[in-house]
Amino acid sequence: MSSHSRWSTPAADALSVAPGFRLVDVDTRATPGYDGDKDQGKADLEAGVAPLADLQERLFAQSVAGTATGSVLLVLQAMDTAGKGGIVKHVVGAVDPQGVELASFKKPTAEELSHDFLWRIRKRLPDAGRLGVFDRSHYEDVLIGRVRELAPADEIERRYGAIVAFEAEAAELGIRVVKVMLHISKEEQRERLADRLERPDKHWKYNPSDVDERALWDDYMDAYQVALERTSTPLAPWHVVPADRKWYARLAVQQLLIDALADIDPQWPGADYDIATEKQRLAAS
Amino acid sequence: MSSHSRWSTPAADALSVAPGFRLVDVDTRATPGYDGDKDQGKADLEAGVAPLADLQERLFAQSVAGTATGSVLLVLQAMDTAGKGGIVKHVVGAVDPQGVELASFKKPTAEELSHDFLWRIRKRLPDAGRLGVFDRSHYEDVLIGRVRELAPADEIERRYGAIVAFEAEAAELGIRVVKVMLHISKEEQRERLADRLERPDKHWKYNPSDVDERALWDDYMDAYQVALERTSTPLAPWHVVPADRKWYARLAVQQLLIDALADIDPQWPGADYDIATEKQRLAAS
Repeated sequence: MSSHSRWSTPAADALSVAPGFRLVDVDTRATPGYDGDKDQGKADLEAGVAPLADLQERLFAQSVAGTATGSVLLVLQAMDTAGKGGIVKHVVGAVDPQGVELASFKKPTAEELSHDFLWRIRKRLPDAGRLGVFDRSHYEDVLIGRVRELAPADEIERRYGAIVAFEAEAAELGIRVVKVMLHISKEEQRERLADRLERPDKHWKYNPSDVDERALWDDYMDAYQVALERTSTPLAPWHVVPADRKWYARLAVQQLLIDALADIDPQWPGADYDIATEKQRLAAS
Repeated sequence: MSSHSRWSTPAADALSVAPGFRLVDVDTRATPGYDGDKDQGKADLEAGVAPLADLQERLFAQSVAGTATGSVLLVLQAMDTAGKGGIVKHVVGAVDPQGVELASFKKPTAEELSHDFLWRIRKRLPDAGRLGVFDRSHYEDVLIGRVRELAPADEIERRYGAIVAFEAEAAELGIRVVKVMLHISKEEQRERLADRLERPDKHWKYNPSDVDERALWDDYMDAYQVALERTSTPLAPWHVVPADRKWYARLAVQQLLIDALADIDPQWPGADYDIATEKQRLAAS
């Protein structure tokens, strides 16, 4: 596949979080595993649309035929401006929306807070045969939850184990959980926020609270480090994607999705009717 | 706008159902209002992506900013193979999925049947600032519902008025309801069904019940005629889109969506914070 040609190391290997991983060592401008430049990266992203869309259509076909056993769930986490929206628009947006289930998790409602933190998450797990996307997720409950002390310390502690168990359960259900942290530098975030303040067509993307959270950057990086260490498992590994270069982040996530779908290897469903009979019925109709 | 240049009559005018409309008079291979050929139509569809995506992003921005008052709801109805899926994939699929709310209505569940026919529909009306799409809709309840006598005759009769009242209520809420019947000929359907039987990658799209319904073609056309007559209103007009030529149907629906969004004329939300203050806060962070 042409989109693989400039990958010296598969994205999943180059980006996955293994024991000993240290977030502070990641270069947010790097392009791990990929040897091309920006123009080549954009061309490879374009070249990756067809294989991704083909795999996703096959999976969707299985869901329509009632034979799907697998699904993919892309979990997107990141500091503000890191590019979650761009991933949804440019990577996920390139496939048939009929097979996509997108869930954006905002600040929990009073009703959601009255339940366990996984209550609202569980309800949005993708159906078999679908490509699910979580724009933010249950990880907020150990990220802003930890930094802002939104729950008692022992409850935050409990959550790491609860998440590992939950994701193992999802994997048992046939869900390939692809967890992505888009990782930008604090300096890159400043430039992107400044851009939003400059441009009237971007004002809506800026929120004064972004700067409040930014002031806690190091605390957030610590919270990410703990979350990555404690919840990256063989069944549901984390991938830290350097995201200062948007083209690389999009290309890398596209590759991760292609790999997850290729791992399911969905085949076109066979006919559950007799083709010859149906041809006759149709001809006579 | 370049995509308008080959429209001698705006799509909305060329396709809307007015008093005296007769479905049997519609040429399913025609391209009402549009003077271009297939190649030009495909180029114009491509040219229409940017204006559609721009309008939709502005509307979505309003929903994020909490200032949205309007939304658009595309209602798609058609006989099997007419191309609903292609519209979702190629027209709706070209905009940011974050702003799209897609609802596919299948055969009602036991729970849904225990409620009024509009119960499940009401729950899926798009939020303000969104582009909603109904792949099939409440019209099934006066189409297959009428043809297959799935409800008593007086209940079917009641539904036309209930639909008109429901859609007027939706319009009051700021929802632009764009109703589209994709209209193919019975012969064109035969070719498309035959193609699904020929190609292993299309077998999943074929269902023996498609031929059962096809046998009732004339009854369905009668049911459409009645539905179009009784539910095409100034607030929520029907558009009958000739769909034997897929390129035309896609181009026409794209135009209808652009017109509905342009009618809302969504502007970028202004900053609800002090820009100078935020620039200082950001610089100091």
